Amino acid sequence: MLWFVGESVGMPDPARRDLLMREEASRQTGGLLTLTAAEQKLDADLHRLKEQEMAATHFLPALHFFKAKPLIEKSAIYRLLQKMPKGALHIHSSSLVSAEWLVKNVTYRPHCYICFTWDNSVRFLFSNQQPFPRWDCFYWQLLESLRARIEDNAGFDSLIQHLTLFTENPDGEYPNQDVVWEKFEKAFIAAAGLITHAPVLRDYIYQGLEELHRDNIMYLELRSGLSWTYELDGTIHDKIWTLKMFQEVTSKFKQNYPEFFGARIIISVHVGRENSGRTLWYFREALSLPAELGASLPYFFHAGETDDEGTDVDQNILDALLFNTSRIGHGYALAHHPLAKELSRKRNVAVELCPISNQVLKLVSDLRNHPAAVLMSEGHPLVISSDDPALFGSTGLSYDFYEAFVGIGGLKASLGTLKELAANSIYSSLPAHFKDRAFAMWQNKWDAFISDNS
Amino acid sequence: MLWFVGESVGMPDPARRDLLMREEASRQTGGLLTLTAAEQKLDADLHRLKEQEMAATHFLPALHFFKAKPLIEKSAIYRLLQKMPKGALHIHSSSLVSAEWLVKNVTYRPHCYICFTWDNSVRFLFSNQQPFPRWDCFYWQLLESLRARIEDNAGFDSLIQHLTLFTENPDGEYPNQDVVWEKFEKAFIAAAGLITHAPVLRDYIYQGLEELHRDNIMYLELRSGLSWTYELDGTIHDKIWTLKMFQEVTSKFKQNYPEFFGARIIISVHVGRENSGRTLWYFREALSLPAELGASLPYFFHAGETDDEGTDVDQNILDALLFNTSRIGHGYALAHHPLAKELSRKRNVAVELCPISNQVLKLVSDLRNHPAAVLMSEGHPLVISSDDPALFGSTGLSYDFYEAFVGIGGLKASLGTLKELAANSIYSSLPAHFKDRAFAMWQNKWDAFISDNS
Ligand SMILES: [Zn+2]
Ligand SMILES: [Zn+2]
Repeated sequence: MLWFVGESVGMPDPARRDLLMREEASRQTGGLLTLTAAEQKLDADLHRLKEQEMAATHFLPALHFFKAKPLIEKSAIYRLLQKMPKGALHIHSSSLVSAEWLVKNVTYRPHCYICFTWDNSVRFLFSNQQPFPRWDCFYWQLLESLRARIEDNAGFDSLIQHLTLFTENPDGEYPNQDVVWEKFEKAFIAAAGLITHAPVLRDYIYQGLEELHRDNIMYLELRSGLSWTYELDGTIHDKIWTLKMFQEVTSKFKQNYPEFFGARIIISVHVGRENSGRTLWYFREALSLPAELGASLPYFFHAGETDDEGTDVDQNILDALLFNTSRIGHGYALAHHPLAKELSRKRNVAVELCPISNQVLKLVSDLRNHPAAVLMSEGHPLVISSDDPALFGSTGLSYDFYEAFVGIGGLKASLGTLKELAANSIYSSLPAHFKDRAFAMWQNKWDAFISDNS
Repeated sequence: MLWFVGESVGMPDPARRDLLMREEASRQTGGLLTLTAAEQKLDADLHRLKEQEMAATHFLPALHFFKAKPLIEKSAIYRLLQKMPKGALHIHSSSLVSAEWLVKNVTYRPHCYICFTWDNSVRFLFSNQQPFPRWDCFYWQLLESLRARIEDNAGFDSLIQHLTLFTENPDGEYPNQDVVWEKFEKAFIAAAGLITHAPVLRDYIYQGLEELHRDNIMYLELRSGLSWTYELDGTIHDKIWTLKMFQEVTSKFKQNYPEFFGARIIISVHVGRENSGRTLWYFREALSLPAELGASLPYFFHAGETDDEGTDVDQNILDALLFNTSRIGHGYALAHHPLAKELSRKRNVAVELCPISNQVLKLVSDLRNHPAAVLMSEGHPLVISSDDPALFGSTGLSYDFYEAFVGIGGLKASLGTLKELAANSIYSSLPAHFKDRAFAMWQNKWDAFISDNS
């Protein structure tokens, strides 16, 4: 029952307190940037807007994105983020374009067949003749004839629902990670029959670039397994054909939109849930092969997209770094790995932070609890990414920027934070000579963005 | 579309990988402790048990505690944690004893009056005559007569419900922080009329010590506002009287249970929700007063019990450190404050981690996302605490240890982690001469705990 006696302190020196607060703020992402007068003005506006949003009835990053989306669209911060020039570095080709476009445009094209599977999913196939039954599809119907027979709107709605995770009641329909990943994989397979049709893929990529460009994305790194594609008569094109086609479409897009800097493809080997797959270390022989043959591939691993701490999968983060990954996809678990975190920082290996993906796939519900808040407060290299926007009912990158800036960064994240995040998204993995050109182009757009909005 | 070429790596050296993994594991709480052979055996058992619990249908720390509680009680890990010797350092006197005891014991005592308020709450008062109406209570009824008139069980249930936050449907009844805090304050006020009756308080403290002792808690630091207490005839005792009574009861308890080391009181000034109160800095003059008068009080602030990053309240953590706090209550936001985190570590200022409190009061739902996972992975000084166990329907400290060890620590938290956490809970704030005695006593009990369970 004794009090023990510590040092007398008296009133802490307010100047020292102020210094410490500024010292801490300087450590966060963008905390060391010096802002121009115009930037400072916009920064103050943003701060005021954020305070208003934090005082509102619903704090949007605490809501599920499916419910928050229409409210985010009304936010002045969101509308500002849409205008900000940026790059998209972690986005899967299978989920590049909105499901709405697939249904309203692609499924209305001639020769589109549909089949309803026993497990309440769908398959699509373009063919100039009645397709053969497959193990998962016994009965193919021509969509055009089906639509003629049934009420159109109903057919419509039910098709969109197969191609995205969106639902009015996410907590009820997806009680746990297993259920939501199952739906994820079904939607992925359902879309495949549409997207791998060669003429569709060509339009799909162009459409995807347009959707990104509308959100002021000027540079893209697209993750793609480069699947084989097919023609109406059943002809198959290999991956090289797909890669060339991607180059052609991108070139055409750049001709039409010269302020778009360009796109690169990251060939992805593994798609799906990290938790249920093998670990990186399991594939160590294969992953070492290129280097042993004298070739060199840059790796962009998904790693640490898990909340199961201490498991083998959780260990993927360290292994991704040991295999010299260029960036870490998700890195959800990185904040809990002090040594891996140091390695990643020392080598400037950026974490691709995908807030909406992590929330929809049920790693975290209230985004204020996203572990990247730790990384952001320490100025760890980060890029904001959208992962599978079409599946999440999102588009572009501004929804994810909103969640990261308002929810994860909180009130202390500033315009400096945004500037560094946007610059990172251009700067991250380009070779030096491209980097300088891209950066100059981005800087011009950034300056225009500031003078238009302050 | 160019690949850029990095360094060739080839196969990472498995020995180096192993070294890095062990180096990282050594940084976590307890990671540097050398375990005896018996401890290693128990550690391996715990690891196996944890793997089983992680593979089960429900991972308990991801569930709301109100749903997880009966399942935790079946866990072999939980039953082991109950046997582990430990200390309780952050527990409020108003929530020390289970609501069930209050209802089944205290409200059955003679002269107990009850009043139902307009806002669906209750007040209690012991009195040897019909109490006067008060602004919040117009009509006092003698519980004994009321019980004689109505069906007993029904009255029972509804009384318990007023004294705890427990409900079958926490997500429905507490949609946000405001609603749950409102209920929190109502329950606090409802219990006050029972607990501040002097003879009840005497039994209450003894009962509280027994409940803790049953969970193998051997040392207690109790946070108390030391309210005035009253007798049947309306006599009032001041805070000094309450403090002396607390000393008497503790001494009596120690006579009956000599293996109980002792209890201290931390006088708390501020109870309630940090978010809605004033900041520490606002009270800076008052807080500096003792030191300026040449006296010295150790402070034990609540700070950073918030997820509103970057607000004034969020800044309380740094201020608590500037006012030389002895420990940080909650420190939920500490992981997002790199500089405050360094200060706290350098000065060995432990964070009082209250997982169940943070979950029930809606800072975090899935405890794997609790920011203390970062602190634990870095070996930041921590003590596990229960905060307001009676309000949360918990008792002792083992439920919170379970959530921290299985949920926050994950698979990598080991017996070493438990040992350091348990030792911290004894070691944290005692003066040196007490510390050594308490620690020797704890070490004996720990050794017995190991030999009984390995
Ligand atoms: Zn991805
Ligand atoms: Zn407390």
